Amino acid sequence: MDTRGRRERLRAAAAERGLDAVLVTDLLNVRYLTGFTGSNGALLLRTGPSAAHPDLFGTDGRYTTQAAAQVPDLQVLVDRGTVAALARAAVRGGAGRIGFESHVVTVDGLAGLERVVTEAADGGAVPELASVRRAVEQLRAAKDDDEVAALRRACAVADTALAELAAEGALRPGRTELQVGRELDARMMQLGAEGPSFETIVASGANSAIPHHRPDATVLREGDFLKLDFGATVDGYHSDMTRTVVLGHAADWQREIYDLVARAQAAGRAALAVGADVVAVDAAAREVIAAAGHGEHFSHGLGHGVGLEIHEAPGIGPLGGGTLTAGMAVTVEPGVYLPGHGGVRIEDTLVVADDEPELLTLTSKELLVL
Amino acid sequence: MDTRGRRERLRAAAAERGLDAVLVTDLLNVRYLTGFTGSNGALLLRTGPSAAHPDLFGTDGRYTTQAAAQVPDLQVLVDRGTVAALARAAVRGGAGRIGFESHVVTVDGLAGLERVVTEAADGGAVPELASVRRAVEQLRAAKDDDEVAALRRACAVADTALAELAAEGALRPGRTELQVGRELDARMMQLGAEGPSFETIVASGANSAIPHHRPDATVLREGDFLKLDFGATVDGYHSDMTRTVVLGHAADWQREIYDLVARAQAAGRAALAVGADVVAVDAAAREVIAAAGHGEHFSHGLGHGVGLEIHEAPGIGPLGGGTLTAGMAVTVEPGVYLPGHGGVRIEDTLVVADDEPELLTLTSKELLVL
Repeated sequence: MDTRGRRERLRAAAAERGLDAVLVTDLLNVRYLTGFTGSNGALLLRTGPSAAHPDLFGTDGRYTTQAAAQVPDLQVLVDRGTVAALARAAVRGGAGRIGFESHVVTVDGLAGLERVVTEAADGGAVPELASVRRAVEQLRAAKDDDEVAALRRACAVADTALAELAAEGALRPGRTELQVGRELDARMMQLGAEGPSFETIVASGANSAIPHHRPDATVLREGDFLKLDFGATVDGYHSDMTRTVVLGHAADWQREIYDLVARAQAAGRAALAVGADVVAVDAAAREVIAAAGHGEHFSHGLGHGVGLEIHEAPGIGPLGGGTLTAGMAVTVEPGVYLPGHGGVRIEDTLVVADDEPELLTLTSKELLVL
Repeated sequence: MDTRGRRERLRAAAAERGLDAVLVTDLLNVRYLTGFTGSNGALLLRTGPSAAHPDLFGTDGRYTTQAAAQVPDLQVLVDRGTVAALARAAVRGGAGRIGFESHVVTVDGLAGLERVVTEAADGGAVPELASVRRAVEQLRAAKDDDEVAALRRACAVADTALAELAAEGALRPGRTELQVGRELDARMMQLGAEGPSFETIVASGANSAIPHHRPDATVLREGDFLKLDFGATVDGYHSDMTRTVVLGHAADWQREIYDLVARAQAAGRAALAVGADVVAVDAAAREVIAAAGHGEHFSHGLGHGVGLEIHEAPGIGPLGGGTLTAGMAVTVEPGVYLPGHGGVRIEDTLVVADDEPELLTLTSKELLVL
């Protein structure tokens, strides 16, 4: 993992914002910038004059060994009061303007930091605490090669789990949504997932019309749509895929909305290009559905970024903003939901590239009748 | 679930703090007070003059159906900007001093709330936003009957999973820590867990001396200690249990430290009583270990509360504060860790009661030689 390169990009962003140091406390941002996977870690990154002192990785005594193994290229500061200790180090290193993550630090947390830096200033000028905004999340939106490789592995686990369950006949009338969901989760873990990417959605029959249905004791029946929205976490990276199949026999109305959603999904994928506006990508899929008179039945955005979080930048929806850049890993997941009747969603995870986007979720998108 | 009773206790606490309303935004606190299990929900609870208006449960359009089912006794406000909408309702209801959870709300979140209440005041007096502190967490520390029942189910799942794996010979030399950990997780899910309570710890041989070892490819060997620290989540409640077994044959030094930890654990459990100071409970176990000359090898606190979170109030350690009350669900988990050699931890989950504490984790604490 090129964590050093990531830190240098953050250092440049911090300098641009007029910061002498940045306290990174969001655990996923810390993992991204250092490789540390424990439950308590923070990073003090320095720039400007204070860059004469080394960056510091902070954690507590439980993680001394793990920090040495995972963060060999940073000086490690071990302290129960990790963030306070890093803030003191920043002040002592002469930082006058210290960045913090205002979307992560709580109101109580900031009050604590203010006390610490005031004390550490020891009567001298008290450094300013200033928001660094989502600078790290912005860097994280475009994935590097190691990250794409992890996403590829995560998607492969999900693909394999679904293929195995289908081949074994686990998706058949008479079983419950909960049984299918638990088997999918267990199979992903057997295949090496750290866990499901999120609470697996298994929605059959009328439940398939509920975009985020939680699997329950509903029994799968012949002729049902069966919508599966699930993913695997591998090395911290999340895959996300939805497939909708039919059990036993597909009715005409089912083929019709399935084909519609499949066409919309293809249009959305075709619109994924470097420089594309996210609103335009959403519109490319949405217009296909609206033209068929189902605009009101597609009630959510087209997609979202995936990576160390299951939902991260960029959002791809009608109210979004911004353009796609190479390396962004995103989902494309239009749906049509007919309340009380049934619904279809088809979702892939892809990586935006200068040429064709790379498709990471490889399960067929033909209408499968199981 | 008596969510109404819980809300009345919070209302009394809010009135005591001079608040006219409380915005509860911590998702677990919202779940505790309303029964809602989705990923976006918040509660506006009103007191004083503003209690003329009903409490409001807020969520977004994805959860309209779920909110109606899970929160039938509260008026539901559906809005994409859930918290802002509740804050506006509080201001319009005449609240002059609105409580918020300063340990949960981020710096950006509070800035947003300040904008919203200023706008909603519409030129009139701007209501004050004041911290309600951890009022809900304080209520949550003592469990009611429904909560104890859920904890009992969660502990039973963990007990059963371990018993089944042991009976099947899954804990034997030649297997890896990762294999054992994954099977334990999968088995708990087959038995009805929503997931493991936390990242399952499987630590064998010298790894057992690392208090929070992450399972890896280490192969279990004859004569090893095998330390398993794991739990199941059932209906949102977490169980927590550690057992240390020996593979094949127990050496004298292993029996010695096992017996020591078992005696310390029994002393800690015996000290669990209504009104007991948490520092004294910790000391009861710690003194047994210190008297045997292993004080420095017991490097963490004795225990912690469990419930909707795996770690919650009260903490039971040498630096803690406060006393136990009836209904508190806590762990008692002393350990002795001999670096490079091996370690033992024995942990139960119990509920403090006026008479004997109720033991929820029922797996034997004899030294098992598998």
